[in-house]
Amino acid sequence: MQKEKQFLLQEKLLEDYNDTYDYEGVSGKRLASRLDALAQIGLTNDNGSNRPGFSKEEKAARELVSGWMREAGLSVREDGAGNIIGRLAGKNNELPAIMSGSHVDSVPNGGHFDGTLGVLSALEVVEAWKQSGYQPKKPFEVVVFTDEEGSRFNGGLNGSEAMIGKGDLQAKLELIDKDGMSFAEVLQDVELSVDSYKSAKRNPDELDIFVEVHIEQGKRLEKENLPCGIVTGIAGPCWLEFTIKGEAGHAGNTPMDDRQDALVAASEFIFEINKLPRQISETAVATVGKQLVEPNGVNVIPGQVKFYVDIRDIHRETRDEVVNRVLALGERIAEEHHVEVEYAEKMRVEPVPIDEETQHILEQSLEEKGIKPHKLPSGAGHDAMIIGEKLPIAMLFVRSKAGISHNPAEWSDLNDCVQVVHVLKDFLEKLQ
Amino acid sequence: MQKEKQFLLQEKLLEDYNDTYDYEGVSGKRLASRLDALAQIGLTNDNGSNRPGFSKEEKAARELVSGWMREAGLSVREDGAGNIIGRLAGKNNELPAIMSGSHVDSVPNGGHFDGTLGVLSALEVVEAWKQSGYQPKKPFEVVVFTDEEGSRFNGGLNGSEAMIGKGDLQAKLELIDKDGMSFAEVLQDVELSVDSYKSAKRNPDELDIFVEVHIEQGKRLEKENLPCGIVTGIAGPCWLEFTIKGEAGHAGNTPMDDRQDALVAASEFIFEINKLPRQISETAVATVGKQLVEPNGVNVIPGQVKFYVDIRDIHRETRDEVVNRVLALGERIAEEHHVEVEYAEKMRVEPVPIDEETQHILEQSLEEKGIKPHKLPSGAGHDAMIIGEKLPIAMLFVRSKAGISHNPAEWSDLNDCVQVVHVLKDFLEKLQ
Repeated sequence: MQKEKQFLLQEKLLEDYNDTYDYEGVSGKRLASRLDALAQIGLTNDNGSNRPGFSKEEKAARELVSGWMREAGLSVREDGAGNIIGRLAGKNNELPAIMSGSHVDSVPNGGHFDGTLGVLSALEVVEAWKQSGYQPKKPFEVVVFTDEEGSRFNGGLNGSEAMIGKGDLQAKLELIDKDGMSFAEVLQDVELSVDSYKSAKRNPDELDIFVEVHIEQGKRLEKENLPCGIVTGIAGPCWLEFTIKGEAGHAGNTPMDDRQDALVAASEFIFEINKLPRQISETAVATVGKQLVEPNGVNVIPGQVKFYVDIRDIHRETRDEVVNRVLALGERIAEEHHVEVEYAEKMRVEPVPIDEETQHILEQSLEEKGIKPHKLPSGAGHDAMIIGEKLPIAMLFVRSKAGISHNPAEWSDLNDCVQVVHVLKDFLEKLQ
Repeated sequence: MQKEKQFLLQEKLLEDYNDTYDYEGVSGKRLASRLDALAQIGLTNDNGSNRPGFSKEEKAARELVSGWMREAGLSVREDGAGNIIGRLAGKNNELPAIMSGSHVDSVPNGGHFDGTLGVLSALEVVEAWKQSGYQPKKPFEVVVFTDEEGSRFNGGLNGSEAMIGKGDLQAKLELIDKDGMSFAEVLQDVELSVDSYKSAKRNPDELDIFVEVHIEQGKRLEKENLPCGIVTGIAGPCWLEFTIKGEAGHAGNTPMDDRQDALVAASEFIFEINKLPRQISETAVATVGKQLVEPNGVNVIPGQVKFYVDIRDIHRETRDEVVNRVLALGERIAEEHHVEVEYAEKMRVEPVPIDEETQHILEQSLEEKGIKPHKLPSGAGHDAMIIGEKLPIAMLFVRSKAGISHNPAEWSDLNDCVQVVHVLKDFLEKLQ
C-alpha cells in the first residue's frame, strides 16, 4: 500500500478557484498542480519548503521544471552555473530574446510561492501560446535561476550573478557552508564546477528584457485589495553597523547628570532615524532590526550598544541621502550624549529603478485585464535586481496573504496567480 | 617549606599610608592586617574574594572576626541565623545598645572592602576604646550579618532580615541554589537550621540605632575629593518589566507609515524615561539596563521588545512619583505608536531615609575631623536598609576608587578607611 500524500497544496489552491480565469489557454488547475509538485520536493515537517541553492532538492526541482519545459516544446539547456533556460523560437531569431522566470530554491523552512510562481507563470504563458498557436516575433526564454536565496552561504543571487558575470568569484571561493563545504565542493556536489560557473556568463546583447513575476512579501496589495501590482524599482539596501560607547555604572549609585548611558543615546538615535525616510522620499525605508546591549544587566547602566540600520530606496540619490542624514545624526548624538559613536558600512547595493515606459506598458496590460494599475517599490532583492544592472527589467508583484513570506504560511490565492499569468502574457505580447 | 603568600593586600594598603591618622588608639596597620587576613579566605585566581553567604568560607571569616572580638574584650555570640554579635558592656546596661557593623560574605568574584570594612571599622573603635580605657554609657555591639550579597540564592540580606523578623520564610524555603541545595540544606551545611534561623529575631527595644560604614561603590566622593560622606538615605529600587508588542515585518517591503515597530516605540520610551527623575527629585534615578529585541534580525522590523526599568530614590513619595510617571508614559507610547505595552512590577523595596538630626550629628563629627561634610544618597541596598525598617540608622560612605565594586579591582585608600574610623568613633561617642 502506498503512503498517503500528506500535503495537499493543489487541493487547497483549487478550493476557492474561480475558473472564469481559465481562458486563452491558461489553466489554473495546471498551475496548481505544478506548484504542488514542486512543493513535494524538500517538504519540511511544517509543510514548508527546504531546497537550498546547489542542493539535491533544488536540482530535483530544476529537473522537474526542465521536463515540463520540454513537454511545452521548449529547447532546454542548463548553463554552467546550474541555471535552466528553456527557449521558444521566435519568428525572427536574430532578435534578442525576452526572458522571464525566477528561481526554485528556498530558504530553510520557506513557502511554496517565492520563486516557483515566477518560473511557472512564464511557463504557463508558453503553454497558453502553444494551445492558441501563437508564436512571438522575438525568441522567448523561460529561466530558472539557481541559488537565489543564498541560504547555504548567506549570500544568494548566484545564478543571476553568473549569467551577467557579476560578483567577486575569489570571495565566493573562500565561502564555507554550515556543513563545512566550500563553494567549489558545493558546485561539484551537483555536477557543476568553478570553471563551468564562469562559463555561464552571457552577452547581454542576446537579451532584450527580463520580466519577473514574484510574490510581494508585503501587505500593500492586500490593503489595496488588488491581485497584482507594477513594481517601480528594486530598492538597494545599505547596512550600517553602529557602536555607541558610553560608560557602564551602577544604576543606583550614578546620578542622572553623571551618566554616559549608551542605551539612552542609542534610543534617541533610533527614534530619530525612524523619522528620516519620509522626509526624503515616499519609497525610502530605514529599519533598526538588531540591537545588542552590554552588559545587559537590570541594574547596570549600559556601557555599549551595537545596532544595525537597514536603509533602502529604489533611487540611489534618495537612498544615499537617507544614509548621509543617519551618519550626520550619529555625530549629533555623539556630541549631545558625550558618547563615542563608531560606524561601519556592511553593505551598499545599487538600487534598480524600472523604466517609466516599461511601467506604462504594464499599466495598459493591467487595465485590459480589468485590474487597477497600482505601483509599488520592491524592498527586497530579486534576480531582476542583478539582471537589471545589465538589461532592462520589468516586475509584477502578486498579492501575499498577510504579507507573510519565507515561512510555511506563505500564501497567494490561485485567482491572483492566474490573473498575473494573463497580465504577463499580455505584456509579453505587447513587447513584440 | 611554607608556600609563599601570593596576595599582599596589607603591603599594598600600607604603601601610601600616612600614619598621622594613627592616634587615640586607632591603628591603620591593624586595620590593614585584618583586611588582609579576611582577603585570604576564599581568595580567587583573580585575587578577588569568593565567600558566598552560608558557605564554609563565610563561616571561616565569621570565626576569624569572632576571635578578634574576644581578644578586644567583647562577649561574643552567634545567633540562629549565623549573625555574629560581639557586645561591649556599657556603663548602664539597661539602656538599648548601639550597634555597628556590616557583613563578610561576598559576591562570587568580589573585592576586599565591601562589607569587611564596615565590620572592621566598628571593631577598630572598640580597640581604640580599650586602649584609652573609654567605656560608653550605652552597650555597644559589633555585628557581622550573614549573607548580605545573596550570591547563593539571588536574594540577600538574610542575616539582617532574620534579626528583625522580616521576609517570607516560606518563599525562602522554596529556594534552590546553583548546586541544587535548598535553603534548609544550606543552613544545615553551616550548622544552622530553619528553627534556629527563626529564633534570630530580636526585640527592637534592645537596640538604639544601627550605624554602618560601607564603601560608596560610586564616584561622587572621588569627584568631591573627600575621604568619606554622610548617607542621606537608602534608595529603595522598583523594577518594572515592560513588553512592547508591535508587528514584525520585512524591513524592505513595509512602508514607514504602515509599521508597528516595537523598537522605535521602546526607543522613544527609554529616551523619555531618562528625562523623568531630574524633574521630580535630585536623588531619583531611573535606568534601563537590560533590553531584548525580537526577532533581532538586521532586515526584520522588531515585533517585540522587552526591557527593565530600575527606579530608585531615598524617599518613597518621589520614587513612586517616578514609577507613576513611567507607567503613564507607557500608556502614551502605546497610543502614539499603535503598539501594546504590558508591564509587570518585579520588585518594590521601601526606601529608608535617614533622620535629619542623625545626619546633623554626623556633620559635626566630620567637621571635627577636618572633613567637609558632604551628603549623598545610597543607591544600593545594605543591611542598614533592612534594619532601618525597625530602628533608626546612620551610614557613612568611604570613597571608592573609580567607583568600582563587586570586582577584584575594588579599592579604598587606607588613609580614607582610617579617617572614617575616627569619624565613626566620634559619632558613637556623641550618641552616648
